[in-house]
Amino acid sequence: MNAPSLDELKFGPPEAGSGGLIPVVTQDARTGAVLMQAYADRAAVQRTLDTREATYYSRSRGEPWVKGQSSGHTQRVVSVLLDCDGDSLLYRVEQTGPACHTGEYTCFHRPLLEGEPAQSGLDGTLERVYGTI
Amino acid sequence: MNAPSLDELKFGPPEAGSGGLIPVVTQDARTGAVLMQAYADRAAVQRTLDTREATYYSRSRGEPWVKGQSSGHTQRVVSVLLDCDGDSLLYRVEQTGPACHTGEYTCFHRPLLEGEPAQSGLDGTLERVYGTI
Repeated sequence: MNAPSLDELKFGPPEAGSGGLIPVVTQDARTGAVLMQAYADRAAVQRTLDTREATYYSRSRGEPWVKGQSSGHTQRVVSVLLDCDGDSLLYRVEQTGPACHTGEYTCFHRPLLEGEPAQSGLDGTLERVYGTI
Repeated sequence: MNAPSLDELKFGPPEAGSGGLIPVVTQDARTGAVLMQAYADRAAVQRTLDTREATYYSRSRGEPWVKGQSSGHTQRVVSVLLDCDGDSLLYRVEQTGPACHTGEYTCFHRPLLEGEPAQSGLDGTLERVYGTI
């Protein structure tokens, strides 16, 4: 796979059009990894809250989308958090299998810029371990 | 603070309008916490890559927005990842101070649905510790 460049970014206009969608960030509740970012309409959010099955709205297909319904790679929703200004949601999930349709664990697997946190010695490791426990 | 309800969600239309924006998910590279979700235009992404200062585009103000420029709560960008289909970005950052303008550590601090991962015994802890190391 070639390294991605800025030219691959799809700068879409998030302000009008199909209407009634909210961005959803999905995080693995066990590992903390960010798995994907998608959209949901009100019915999809309500279904997620009611069933704990992560449900989105597919903009390409124009219909509700229960994650893993065809692939088996379901997401059991552990918690749902609303952001400060109410225009973004976080689903924290238990992921079955890979989250990405490519077979990768997370959809965010193409680095545009790489690096590690400055704090990377033993102290940092222990801090992360304590944070994990 | 009252518990939030579905009525507080702003279901915006992400398909048209201001043009040229991509959603950005921001994660604390040290703790794994999802801090915020915002938007960037191409210039903001380029500036982020060039300077490692997390830069967004403010839809409300209609201008570029260098996180922390007025508050001091800056984000040093450790890595930037593009998702599988090129329509979402992940900034992994070292956060200075709180990420949220409310003073909370993360913007996602209002639970709509609460819970913990099923795997919460010692086995799960060790797995998370190994994953952290």
